[in-house]
Amino acid sequence: MAESNSKQRIINSERLTKKLRQLGQVGGLEAGGVSRLALTDADKQGRDLVISWMKNLGMVVSIDAIGNVVATIEGEQDLPLIMIGSHIDSVSTAGIYDGNLGVLAALEVVETLVESKTKLQHPLAVAFFTNEEGARFAPDMMGSAVYTQALGLEQALNTLGIDGKTVAEELQRIGYNGSDKKLPAANSLAAFLELHVEQGPVLDRKDLDIGIVEGVQGISWSEFTFHGTSNHAGTTPMQYRNDAGLVAAKVIVFANQLAQRIGNQQLATVGSLSFKPNLVNVIPNYACFTIDLRNSNENLLVQAENELLDYIKIEAKAHGLSVEQRQLARFQPVQFNQKLLASIEALAQQQKLSHTRIFSGAGHDAQMFAPHCPTAMIFVPSDKGISHNINEYTSPEQCANGANLLLNTVLNLACKERSHLHV
Amino acid sequence: MAESNSKQRIINSERLTKKLRQLGQVGGLEAGGVSRLALTDADKQGRDLVISWMKNLGMVVSIDAIGNVVATIEGEQDLPLIMIGSHIDSVSTAGIYDGNLGVLAALEVVETLVESKTKLQHPLAVAFFTNEEGARFAPDMMGSAVYTQALGLEQALNTLGIDGKTVAEELQRIGYNGSDKKLPAANSLAAFLELHVEQGPVLDRKDLDIGIVEGVQGISWSEFTFHGTSNHAGTTPMQYRNDAGLVAAKVIVFANQLAQRIGNQQLATVGSLSFKPNLVNVIPNYACFTIDLRNSNENLLVQAENELLDYIKIEAKAHGLSVEQRQLARFQPVQFNQKLLASIEALAQQQKLSHTRIFSGAGHDAQMFAPHCPTAMIFVPSDKGISHNINEYTSPEQCANGANLLLNTVLNLACKERSHLHV
Repeated sequence: MAESNSKQRIINSERLTKKLRQLGQVGGLEAGGVSRLALTDADKQGRDLVISWMKNLGMVVSIDAIGNVVATIEGEQDLPLIMIGSHIDSVSTAGIYDGNLGVLAALEVVETLVESKTKLQHPLAVAFFTNEEGARFAPDMMGSAVYTQALGLEQALNTLGIDGKTVAEELQRIGYNGSDKKLPAANSLAAFLELHVEQGPVLDRKDLDIGIVEGVQGISWSEFTFHGTSNHAGTTPMQYRNDAGLVAAKVIVFANQLAQRIGNQQLATVGSLSFKPNLVNVIPNYACFTIDLRNSNENLLVQAENELLDYIKIEAKAHGLSVEQRQLARFQPVQFNQKLLASIEALAQQQKLSHTRIFSGAGHDAQMFAPHCPTAMIFVPSDKGISHNINEYTSPEQCANGANLLLNTVLNLACKERSHLHV
Repeated sequence: MAESNSKQRIINSERLTKKLRQLGQVGGLEAGGVSRLALTDADKQGRDLVISWMKNLGMVVSIDAIGNVVATIEGEQDLPLIMIGSHIDSVSTAGIYDGNLGVLAALEVVETLVESKTKLQHPLAVAFFTNEEGARFAPDMMGSAVYTQALGLEQALNTLGIDGKTVAEELQRIGYNGSDKKLPAANSLAAFLELHVEQGPVLDRKDLDIGIVEGVQGISWSEFTFHGTSNHAGTTPMQYRNDAGLVAAKVIVFANQLAQRIGNQQLATVGSLSFKPNLVNVIPNYACFTIDLRNSNENLLVQAENELLDYIKIEAKAHGLSVEQRQLARFQPVQFNQKLLASIEALAQQQKLSHTRIFSGAGHDAQMFAPHCPTAMIFVPSDKGISHNINEYTSPEQCANGANLLLNTVLNLACKERSHLHV
């Protein structure tokens, strides 16, 4: 694709694919896919393997107190560090691409540079962060949150996992309780870049090579509980009912219409719902459900929250129900660096990669860096949008497209002064 | 209320209330109410107590092979039997009125006749039927179904209860496996009458004394299961979803609107619903729910079923879901005897009892007799419509109103030839 441009380095797709499969076998599941929960033995083996590859490339490996691994190659000048990376921990039934692609493509970028004896002006680091998934220890993005001081180290270390063990004792057990305090602060970085699989269907459906990630959607999770009156389904006329289940259903339908009315970026999902007493012939006196609202625009997200709450109050009153509300999570949208996005877009164009701007619906390590330094993400397609599933798949060619774009973005950045990166 | 009419006997309200409370203590719960599941020790004690009262009145007690108890007093002429009664078994947390009122008011009618030395032309029987509730052994209305040959005796006896015991062994254990084969066939009865609490809110809300029960609503119970695609709530655009939960919610809302559109008699209830995987941030790929449709008009009930099924098919297709349907129950509406209802109505009028025609949403023993002989039911109010609940309540005055109307209906019937009763 870039054969006519001698300055445009090309990564080795076979080598990248081989590494993805090799790492995918660590904690590999019989049916395919991988289980490498943070700080388990499998995670340790994965870490050891990736670090051995880093060292083979002559990188200097540092490990900090939360187990984040940062491997660096020197630049020709004393300039701020460019950091690229992602995570290698997984959910319990995962594919081999989520996170891993971002780390191994970053490593492939370094290997391509080393192999072609290309020197960068900026130093370059490949990083992987502890417990991005949050599947064993909450919250997710723990390592990058500690790195960027969004989460205190002590608090993170004291976190109790689903198996009753703490982050601190598991870090120590697998030998990843690092002591490196010299890692550069997030706000001193020249840039942070992360390549990731989309985990959604947009690129796959539109048959596009690349998603230029504008940012990460804001998230609003609420739980609502309606209390009505349990009554006989055969003896209670429709107009005398206080049917908690009916009003929950009305809210689900309303939330869906609301998302469609607000527009393309607005998402609304009711994933969890329960009725009581949950019997065929008894009107439910209890309905408890969650609503997951997402938007890349904070104002619109607030509008969605408000309209939904108004509707819930009006309907509950009309049906004689009481309502309880509990906020489960609330994150404001994250915007990535516009200049960086524009330059990635231009490079994708140059490489003849079909592309679109896209918002991430899932959380990523990069979002932790966005407030501190020029940050961007590149998405490659996920087959059918499937993710957190052993059937997650991104083809070698698609992975290579992303890695090449990452390489060229790094080359583009590392040959300029840092000032160019600021908006 | 009938002091000016010497022919109109009046039951003893205090005596009826006392018996209701006495029987209510058998299997009585600490918090109030009663637990007298069919063929348990408590049911045996209740049966023994009621039979002792029957015998005290000089009635001849027969017990058939399914444990139905029929106590008779002779009439002056060799005319068909008038049968009045209900049941004394209960659900596990019941009030003391459901069923019991119908049996004890029938007994009070006999006691009033005996006490006043009133002779009827027809013989009169007070009956209580085994396992009306169906709470321990399915189906409900078992005893009356066997009596009216809607259910085979062997099948009923072999029924396995929720505790793994059969009807046959429990009947034998409590000594109610009767051998009486001389009970009159349902189609030879002059009439069957049942007084019952409404178990719904209509009479209470309208502040009426009496419901003249037109019949029992037809019932259609279905279970629907939608299969869609489980996907990430944050990465899957609204237009790419196969959201089983959303379509279930749309059906719930539609069913409610459908019932209101079809009109007053049509009921629609979604009492039971479950989502999978039932997580806040995952689009449900599975939603399973029940729909309880009821109408006193079979054509309208069929219309409701059809419209609902059409809607479900269209919506499932539009959202890319597959559907499974399972019929859980289907009973056609039962109509009671119009002439009998008209005469009860006239008597209520005469007694200055406020009244309305009403359909029963719940099943009753009387509906088993309706195809075979002139049958009717009388309802008295349930406080707030509460039933199958220890807080079920009907005041002594309301109970007495029903018992007096039952008495006068019996007097009215028993002084005429059988031919008068036929429509």
